[in-house]
Amino acid sequence: MNYSKIPLAQTVVTLCKTHNIKHIIISPGSRNAPLTIGFTHDDFFTCYSIVDERCAAFFAMGIAQQTKELTAVVCTSGSALLNYYPAVSEAYYSRIPLVVISADRPKHLVDIGDGQTIKQKNVYGEHVFYSANLKLDLREEAQQPQKEEVPLFKNLENKVEKLLGLQNGLQAQNETEIHNALNAAVLNSGPVHINAPFDEPLYERVNELTISPVPFGLPNIDEVIDENLIEDCRSLWKTANRKLVLVGVLPPNSVEQRWIEELANEDSVIILTETTSNLHHQDIFPGIDKLITAFDDDDQKLFQPELLLTFGGLIVSKRIKRYLRTFQPKTHWHVDLYHANDTFFVLDKHIQLQPNTFLKALLGENQITVKSSYKPNFLKIRERRRLLHDEYLKTIPYSDFTVFNSILKSIPRYSQLQVGNSSAIRYTQLFQLREDITVFCNRGTSGIDGSTSTAVGAAVASERPVTFITGDLSFFYDSNALWNNYIPSDFRIIVLNNSGGGIFRILPGHKNTENFDTYFETKHNLNASDLSKMFGFEYVSASNQIELEDALVEFYKTSDKPKLLEVFTPSEINDTILLDYFKFIK
Amino acid sequence: MNYSKIPLAQTVVTLCKTHNIKHIIISPGSRNAPLTIGFTHDDFFTCYSIVDERCAAFFAMGIAQQTKELTAVVCTSGSALLNYYPAVSEAYYSRIPLVVISADRPKHLVDIGDGQTIKQKNVYGEHVFYSANLKLDLREEAQQPQKEEVPLFKNLENKVEKLLGLQNGLQAQNETEIHNALNAAVLNSGPVHINAPFDEPLYERVNELTISPVPFGLPNIDEVIDENLIEDCRSLWKTANRKLVLVGVLPPNSVEQRWIEELANEDSVIILTETTSNLHHQDIFPGIDKLITAFDDDDQKLFQPELLLTFGGLIVSKRIKRYLRTFQPKTHWHVDLYHANDTFFVLDKHIQLQPNTFLKALLGENQITVKSSYKPNFLKIRERRRLLHDEYLKTIPYSDFTVFNSILKSIPRYSQLQVGNSSAIRYTQLFQLREDITVFCNRGTSGIDGSTSTAVGAAVASERPVTFITGDLSFFYDSNALWNNYIPSDFRIIVLNNSGGGIFRILPGHKNTENFDTYFETKHNLNASDLSKMFGFEYVSASNQIELEDALVEFYKTSDKPKLLEVFTPSEINDTILLDYFKFIK
Repeated sequence: MNYSKIPLAQTVVTLCKTHNIKHIIISPGSRNAPLTIGFTHDDFFTCYSIVDERCAAFFAMGIAQQTKELTAVVCTSGSALLNYYPAVSEAYYSRIPLVVISADRPKHLVDIGDGQTIKQKNVYGEHVFYSANLKLDLREEAQQPQKEEVPLFKNLENKVEKLLGLQNGLQAQNETEIHNALNAAVLNSGPVHINAPFDEPLYERVNELTISPVPFGLPNIDEVIDENLIEDCRSLWKTANRKLVLVGVLPPNSVEQRWIEELANEDSVIILTETTSNLHHQDIFPGIDKLITAFDDDDQKLFQPELLLTFGGLIVSKRIKRYLRTFQPKTHWHVDLYHANDTFFVLDKHIQLQPNTFLKALLGENQITVKSSYKPNFLKIRERRRLLHDEYLKTIPYSDFTVFNSILKSIPRYSQLQVGNSSAIRYTQLFQLREDITVFCNRGTSGIDGSTSTAVGAAVASERPVTFITGDLSFFYDSNALWNNYIPSDFRIIVLNNSGGGIFRILPGHKNTENFDTYFETKHNLNASDLSKMFGFEYVSASNQIELEDALVEFYKTSDKPKLLEVFTPSEINDTILLDYFKFIK
Repeated sequence: MNYSKIPLAQTVVTLCKTHNIKHIIISPGSRNAPLTIGFTHDDFFTCYSIVDERCAAFFAMGIAQQTKELTAVVCTSGSALLNYYPAVSEAYYSRIPLVVISADRPKHLVDIGDGQTIKQKNVYGEHVFYSANLKLDLREEAQQPQKEEVPLFKNLENKVEKLLGLQNGLQAQNETEIHNALNAAVLNSGPVHINAPFDEPLYERVNELTISPVPFGLPNIDEVIDENLIEDCRSLWKTANRKLVLVGVLPPNSVEQRWIEELANEDSVIILTETTSNLHHQDIFPGIDKLITAFDDDDQKLFQPELLLTFGGLIVSKRIKRYLRTFQPKTHWHVDLYHANDTFFVLDKHIQLQPNTFLKALLGENQITVKSSYKPNFLKIRERRRLLHDEYLKTIPYSDFTVFNSILKSIPRYSQLQVGNSSAIRYTQLFQLREDITVFCNRGTSGIDGSTSTAVGAAVASERPVTFITGDLSFFYDSNALWNNYIPSDFRIIVLNNSGGGIFRILPGHKNTENFDTYFETKHNLNASDLSKMFGFEYVSASNQIELEDALVEFYKTSDKPKLLEVFTPSEINDTILLDYFKFIK
């Protein structure tokens, strides 16, 4: 008895298999029981049970982020699916193929006072690439009472026979809708929503499938190279003296190293990367803010590119966005299979290719070399900043800044780093990470709402051990991320606890008033030790540099349980140390 | 320097004051800083700081539930406002006037790759009664770059002058939109959304308001009695022999006791209430499931009403819905100022009045008495059930059932009871509560996602001490409800911990398999002691009847901290005891 008796549930489950969805994250409920029965009784699927839907969806996103494959979340009707929305929006802007499957009441039971019922159709608006609003199996559809009529379910049995033809039509329609949704998730690499209404009884099972879906081809995702476009690009590329390559969030190994080398060796090219770009070469420029914040007027002018080439997802640095909106390039090309943001208001070309495909086409044939002092000039500045950076570290007391320096150095070789939003990711940008570390951060919406859950999901899907670095607010926000049975024992969390939203101290605005403490910094006295105990984490804390160094020695050793290191830092000096840094490295 | 320099922020804050919004729940952020500055520097408002927006919105709902007044939540841009959505949907179906004010990026910075930016416009779809999409102040509006043009912000200053006329138009338009939204919240008693874009700088302040809003009348909420309609009702009322009055969620004191008495004294009338109806009289029928579940075929036929009169919000009992859909009344009237659900597919009249107004009009003039055995018959059955109920309690071992009996009896006089969804509210319905207790539960969407936060908000707004009873899943789901500084020391939480979703054991479906434990019951070993410690609650637990009785003796005594009582019950026998109960009381 491995199948739900409800044909629509069988159809959803079967087509998810056709589309090769392997990971299914299920939140408990009764309305979705037909789906839960189907998914959990088929070994093809790896199923996870997570109660809090907000966490479940971010966890699923973490899996999809690592596997780059469609990953599904399944929930009951009512407000349950609204709790997925923060992750859906993150997946939308981060281009993660999250498939939301929500169970629903039959249409005739929506908005008539039944429990756990909302208007689920199209509920994610423009933040999904497809909304499949499935229809009830006809046996149930026939139950929709007509106004002024005795409800049909009294004389239902008589009607079923003659509706069989319609049933087949409905089945085909539902199949098409599901395929459309799953194809849209693949073709856009983004979230989609499948809403599936089920009527009671919900728990009945059968031994054999009663459906036989029409065969369906999976979508074609081959890239098409437009030779004319490439020729245009190449001719401008050959002549431009100042070409800036700015790379946003990019999964590791997205671009072959030889193209990065070719770019990086070119004097007319400066490559700006962030830790989330996962690109490495001695002649590229990681640490954008470190480079540009201390620019004098001359540097600002000299840095202005003729041509801006961007690829990857969203950019962390606000300063580079501000800079390039003021010192605009003549031309901006964005290379991305799906979408191009006009971030600097001068977007000229959206090149619909994978970055690697484009770079191969652009650079592959014969090497282009343009004489220029663009890169050499700024390499010198980069070197100066690096020296000053190291010097600054020697002069400052224990603080967020020194803590990031220590913890980023200590991350084990060939492991994965997940970073929380707000201060955590901004500090991380100031340090140069080793090549062997891969870095991820939810920059789609940059929320503090689901970073821990995403990191846990990533840790489940990745072969590398994962370290997650987060601020205190973000950590407590998503504490239910720890409420599941799937956290690997090599998972490591480092919470930077500066007793509130440290980022607000760095932003403008009045400080050191009760009003500031309460409504901006949201000062608190919480720590993570009770949560660690509750959720079975080994807990260790540090409040000064020596304790920190000591803790880090043990922290990555093999253990039976995952571990959490909480580092307390002094909120009153963190902001000054950061702001002074940018003066110091001038 | 008590005002944001941004005129739009001043306008939002000023008009909230005009509409008498007193409670403002703020989540930290930078984009909403102009609003935070305005609200927190005016003593007219009571402001609260809550980090997790999901909790913040349910907390606000708890305040609005008690005060019946517009209550506002304020958040930053990006996914923040999506975390409000579960509470928004609950407020929509529970008719709670929740005002969501979200800060947004300027339109020209949406969907171009800026951080913390989503498509906020109309994001709550049909789950709000108005979406006010405000426009940027013109100074900023002028910055919207035209495609193919150098962005305007370079030569902005020159343009401002001639746009002053337009600015006034824009200001008027924004004012109207805000009024429309707030009026809609009042006129529909439901949630609305105001989306307010702000451009940087966000933290600048001024000493004086720079706006002077046009005077505006508040909406007219007088009721209009349609005498013809009442006359129609009265004539049917006089003749019907079997009139069933079914009351959903109803705030305390919604109906004067004399009308309840008049109804209850009438032999042709049966009044079915739930604990959430907050109505009391010796001749009414609380405990619907207790009455109807054990009906034999004759009872079922005899109970079928000619006329069904409903008022109040949603109904907890699934059984009465099923019963009345099968044994439909000839006529159904629903009395509600705003909305009528056609729950039983025979809705005849939506009477748009407050229940009290309608009952006064219907019953007030001269008493109507219809000879009938309808009520007397079922009063006998009610008595029998009550006796059997008490007898059953003597026969059963320690379990959810006995625990509810004990804890509901122990609730202090004249206090308020907040009940979590799922098992908690369903068990509560089986017991008769004392008249002096007022009862609330989030039945709009019946989610497990925000009951604790709602209870905390209610405790803040209510003069009565609040006891909150919840199941374990619902409690852990919303554990961030405890993360704020506003929980009164007389707040009491009772967690019924049966190690998972006990309700799934009561529902049909296979039990006692690993699959069931994991994906339906979602079995866990968590307890609430670490969370209690973390959030400063006194913690006490009980695992048997004696421990429970002991704990309850101390539990309601005055204390410096709020308290949490965790009651562990045996999940393996709870379901059998409940199912046997309905057989026993036959």
